[in-house]
Amino acid sequence: MKAVRLHAFHAQPVIDEVPEPTVGEPLDVIVKIGGAGVCRTDLHIIEGQWDAAMGTPLPYILGHENAGWVHQVGSGVTNVAVGDTVILHPTPTCGLCRACRAGDDMHCVAAEFPGLSRDGGMAEYLRTSARACVKLDPQTRPADVAALADAGITAYHAVRKAIPLLYPGTTCVVIGAGGLGHIGIQCLAALTATRIIVVDRNPDALKLAEQLGAHHTVVGDGGQVGAVRDLTGGAGANVVLDFVAEQGAEQDGFAMTGRAGSYFVIGYGGQLQIPTLDIISTERNIIGNIVGTYNDLAELMVLAQTGRVTLHTRTYPMEAVADAFADLDAGRVPPGPNIRTPQEGQWPRNCVSVTKRASC
Amino acid sequence: MKAVRLHAFHAQPVIDEVPEPTVGEPLDVIVKIGGAGVCRTDLHIIEGQWDAAMGTPLPYILGHENAGWVHQVGSGVTNVAVGDTVILHPTPTCGLCRACRAGDDMHCVAAEFPGLSRDGGMAEYLRTSARACVKLDPQTRPADVAALADAGITAYHAVRKAIPLLYPGTTCVVIGAGGLGHIGIQCLAALTATRIIVVDRNPDALKLAEQLGAHHTVVGDGGQVGAVRDLTGGAGANVVLDFVAEQGAEQDGFAMTGRAGSYFVIGYGGQLQIPTLDIISTERNIIGNIVGTYNDLAELMVLAQTGRVTLHTRTYPMEAVADAFADLDAGRVPPGPNIRTPQEGQWPRNCVSVTKRASC
Amino acid sequence: MKAVRLHAFHAQPVIDEVPEPTVGEPLDVIVKIGGAGVCRTDLHIIEGQWDAAMGTPLPYILGHENAGWVHQVGSGVTNVAVGDTVILHPTPTCGLCRACRAGDDMHCVAAEFPGLSRDGGMAEYLRTSARACVKLDPQTRPADVAALADAGITAYHAVRKAIPLLYPGTTCVVIGAGGLGHIGIQCLAALTATRIIVVDRNPDALKLAEQLGAHHTVVGDGGQVGAVRDLTGGAGANVVLDFVAEQGAEQDGFAMTGRAGSYFVIGYGGQLQIPTLDIISTERNIIGNIVGTYNDLAELMVLAQTGRVTLHTRTYPMEAVADAFADLDAGRVPPGPNIRTPQEGQWPRNCVSVTKRASC
Amino acid sequence: MKAVRLHAFHAQPVIDEVPEPTVGEPLDVIVKIGGAGVCRTDLHIIEGQWDAAMGTPLPYILGHENAGWVHQVGSGVTNVAVGDTVILHPTPTCGLCRACRAGDDMHCVAAEFPGLSRDGGMAEYLRTSARACVKLDPQTRPADVAALADAGITAYHAVRKAIPLLYPGTTCVVIGAGGLGHIGIQCLAALTATRIIVVDRNPDALKLAEQLGAHHTVVGDGGQVGAVRDLTGGAGANVVLDFVAEQGAEQDGFAMTGRAGSYFVIGYGGQLQIPTLDIISTERNIIGNIVGTYNDLAELMVLAQTGRVTLHTRTYPMEAVADAFADLDAGRVPPGPNIRTPQEGQWPRNCVSVTKRASC
Repeated sequence: MKAVRLHAFHAQPVIDEVPEPTVGEPLDVIVKIGGAGVCRTDLHIIEGQWDAAMGTPLPYILGHENAGWVHQVGSGVTNVAVGDTVILHPTPTCGLCRACRAGDDMHCVAAEFPGLSRDGGMAEYLRTSARACVKLDPQTRPADVAALADAGITAYHAVRKAIPLLYPGTTCVVIGAGGLGHIGIQCLAALTATRIIVVDRNPDALKLAEQLGAHHTVVGDGGQVGAVRDLTGGAGANVVLDFVAEQGAEQDGFAMTGRAGSYFVIGYGGQLQIPTLDIISTERNIIGNIVGTYNDLAELMVLAQTGRVTLHTRTYPMEAVADAFADLDAGRVPPGPNIRTPQEGQWPRNCVSVTKRASC
Repeated sequence: MKAVRLHAFHAQPVIDEVPEPTVGEPLDVIVKIGGAGVCRTDLHIIEGQWDAAMGTPLPYILGHENAGWVHQVGSGVTNVAVGDTVILHPTPTCGLCRACRAGDDMHCVAAEFPGLSRDGGMAEYLRTSARACVKLDPQTRPADVAALADAGITAYHAVRKAIPLLYPGTTCVVIGAGGLGHIGIQCLAALTATRIIVVDRNPDALKLAEQLGAHHTVVGDGGQVGAVRDLTGGAGANVVLDFVAEQGAEQDGFAMTGRAGSYFVIGYGGQLQIPTLDIISTERNIIGNIVGTYNDLAELMVLAQTGRVTLHTRTYPMEAVADAFADLDAGRVPPGPNIRTPQEGQWPRNCVSVTKRASC
Repeated sequence: MKAVRLHAFHAQPVIDEVPEPTVGEPLDVIVKIGGAGVCRTDLHIIEGQWDAAMGTPLPYILGHENAGWVHQVGSGVTNVAVGDTVILHPTPTCGLCRACRAGDDMHCVAAEFPGLSRDGGMAEYLRTSARACVKLDPQTRPADVAALADAGITAYHAVRKAIPLLYPGTTCVVIGAGGLGHIGIQCLAALTATRIIVVDRNPDALKLAEQLGAHHTVVGDGGQVGAVRDLTGGAGANVVLDFVAEQGAEQDGFAMTGRAGSYFVIGYGGQLQIPTLDIISTERNIIGNIVGTYNDLAELMVLAQTGRVTLHTRTYPMEAVADAFADLDAGRVPPGPNIRTPQEGQWPRNCVSVTKRASC
Repeated sequence: MKAVRLHAFHAQPVIDEVPEPTVGEPLDVIVKIGGAGVCRTDLHIIEGQWDAAMGTPLPYILGHENAGWVHQVGSGVTNVAVGDTVILHPTPTCGLCRACRAGDDMHCVAAEFPGLSRDGGMAEYLRTSARACVKLDPQTRPADVAALADAGITAYHAVRKAIPLLYPGTTCVVIGAGGLGHIGIQCLAALTATRIIVVDRNPDALKLAEQLGAHHTVVGDGGQVGAVRDLTGGAGANVVLDFVAEQGAEQDGFAMTGRAGSYFVIGYGGQLQIPTLDIISTERNIIGNIVGTYNDLAELMVLAQTGRVTLHTRTYPMEAVADAFADLDAGRVPPGPNIRTPQEGQWPRNCVSVTKRASC
């Protein structure tokens, strides 16, 4: 089969002919890929930033946001059958450790991460586990939802954790209306009645944000902290969801919170520098977020299938993967209502979502 | 009446003869002081560190940890009567703002702070509000409990917030077994079945910690992060309660947490420097804590009156307040079972608790 | 002033000329009434059903759902000023007991209930407390929102408690789309992405329910339990909000819940008869609900003022209060988009909401 | 192997010679039984009460509270190895449904229940699943802990759910200090600082309750509701844990709760008859409880292995199983410090715990 493989850091991935994956363990599932998301993490992988953490031997197949159809199942698989349309939780988990038993899939002690720690989904077929498969309405086109597998679940997970803080009368700031942020805005609008302020440097992203549910938008031109203070009568926001968390956003984000406020870190790259006095004197919190649980993904798919969350991405045929990487790197894929419908039968194809978060 | 007043920063407070406070507002309560805690915040006030934040005109009376007996009440007071033994929540609140209406006394938009923002309790009488009074068993000696009014409530508040994270099988690290920490350890032992590891530079403090419920103690001599890793099989702690949060403790504290762990900042003085990647990759939290609610104080007094939390302090007559400050500053009041029983009738007297937290 | 007073049980209330209320306590507030809700509880009061519980001496003024403008304030009032537009929490509370200090206004040990335990708001003026006043946008017409003061807050409170149970993919049944229910449906739609099934005997109520956000409606003609089972693939609902809870609805409501489901009792009148085996074998809960907190009302007013919750009521001039009672009793005020805009200056006037819950 | 099998309802089970179970599915685990609890549910099974619900073909092996050593494992088992000492969660679960993915093992859509729905553990060997195995300290004697597998987990689960309601100053009533109740009391004492009142008809059970942590005991001779009212100054309890829930206990239990109180149903057999007015007027809750999660059992074992929870049971050799049933039925096994240490090598043996709850 054809697959997009990384052979060396700082070099473009290559389309190789490789053997198809096969069922090994009882819970293995082979998925025919219908769409594989491209995100900034892929650029970071190519740059070698994840090498130390993962140590995955090269070459290997990229692609950690995957959806498609079940092609083959292991002897212990009971939740999906051949032909089912599925989206894949990014981490096949053991199901037996304390974290798995508590529903915290992301903290499984034995999790793998296809596309980072082993062969991913920019290929015709992918090997995953029954525990990663979320069954979809058969009508769903995998390429339309693939990016929800990681970018989407990450945004949803953070919003879901914030819900108890976002009762009517509160204010939530979203920093970054890109690949993750534009999903986060929709989740906020679907699940809360909070007032949504969106901050981004890109005026086009802010226009989209307004269509998706933002009540106020702020251009990130240096005055964003003051603008949020003004919009909240000086009080600051109850919650800030920071999908950027680098290049100063991380300091802005904390500064935008008010008394007893919570700053949710979702993006990464920057370094927090905060006096402990500032944390205690107003009793503020800094909340880490990473991907989400299996059930988070299942819930997000309910929102997607009822039209409450829609992805704004551009799709490319697999042969054009180099263009996808280049466009993403150059900022030529602003999120917008520009989904190019994939023609049936023409898969694998990959959808691109702009994001400033590596883990998407 | 006699009162300990601060006339100038960087100069010792002086015992002055001043007029007794009188009832003004309907909810005012005048309390005859039975014990006023001395804590490190008092040293910081003398050093001028709180001048910018408070701007309280000098001279004013110190003392923000107060207990005694109700002496006089305003026309609207219904919850206490003259003669009642009371401990005082540190901040008289408005009772009408959103925070007060949600039980979050510390976030009252109109809170005052006797001893910081107006005359405090190192005096024969103090003016406070009905909303600050927690009624005690008449047998309670105010000097035995006064330090619970701020040091105690702060430790209790943090522990109470951490309870849902501290199910059996978890590990909680306490950094600093001083004025606040030695109360925190007792609260942990009373309210959870977590394994308690206490870190302190002072071996005597660690000895006390063991008596109070610590399962393991670690001398803070540079190897404390590694020691916690070893004691947790490499996993790190579920919760770290940092009663120091300066001089490097703030970096240690975060480093001691494991995946999905939470670092509770209670002390202050240092500066956190944490890459956002470290926050998201393991989904860890940094939780601010400030004093506590009125109900927190009421609950803590239940623990105190049933003997589950006992204060280890030293008491001084008011005339010896300079000695109390000097002893605290020089580290000569290690927490220990050295309560000197105040003789009845010989009040006002002040109890000293060693703490590394300004707000205590 | 004119006021609607009850002189004897089982007799119609009468419009009397009575003295205006005056400020007594420091926190007293006199409100010029702009709208007073009429609800089924008023009918129950007239029937004497609340006599044993309240023992209020006759005659007294009815009206427990009140909104208007601040007319006069006591010496200790800081949160509202003369002229402010306000809606009133139904129970002036003490602000000093444990419940008040935790934000649980409804469990105040010293709460009063104007309209039940003392003179209410079907009058030109009402005496209440600063603690009961929620300040509104000056543009708000009190008669448009008065019924939110009790019917509204009760529905909102129940929905807010259910939010954590109502993630995407769940099903919530609403029994009774009347005075409280039609607000509950709107709150569900504003605050969750759950699937909403509404059950009512009245087809007109179901039509309104669909406009307000119901995804499915079921006529309560005897087959309603089976219909809910069918709509949930046999699993039952995650949550049932029962705004009726009499005449069999209370048994239906519990029967409609699935494994680990929760049955919220909001209406009353019936008697639950449930084997403890049925409660434990599927681990289901029965959750009581009564009115709501002050902050609940403030939050609900945010929903009302942003148009997410609108009342469907009919208004009457005070002189026609007998018609209002008669229409309500005869079921001639089905909830619907039939608000008759009150003419400015023509108050006091009373809005009617149909409800099957006494406490509304 | 030898096994205790039920051949007909209303007849004593018989010790048969049957084939040993073998590994079938990849996650199957064969456990050499070290102790199997006997509880009242077994009596109910013999009486045929579970036949309709389970429909398990006779004959089959009884025993749903099991502990022992891993004897053989399937190809997909990674969490335990041959020779490990284990206690078994009562329900092997699928690991793939929503409930399993949320950690709610008891609501698995495909759970089995050895001892009820298929062959149980009153035998030399039992077939279960990797998902049911909780690994223990190798020093643990299975017969000492077996009854924790169901009676224990059920009591622990209820207490854990109640923790947020049981802050210092609250009161918790325990009805029934038998097989489940005596564990519940210990869990309450280990995990909260609530005041514990224990109600039982049996004075010996109350004596044990005092040793285990009860602050007050009340003989259930008819005056128990009044006694609880008196002990709570008329307010009623914050929480009632009812381990009986039949023969009137279910009405008493609800009546013992105060405003905003919660009545936890754990036992069964009776029928609740409660006016909905009583539920709403004071906003009380009725909370169902069934067994517990895998993580609950793991947490309980931490309490057991650190000595905070100890079982008070009597052990019998398998040959004397008829005596065990008879003694339990006749009330001759009051819970007490009467553990007869099983001699090593002499297993299988069964421990008996008195309980009034079928599911234990």
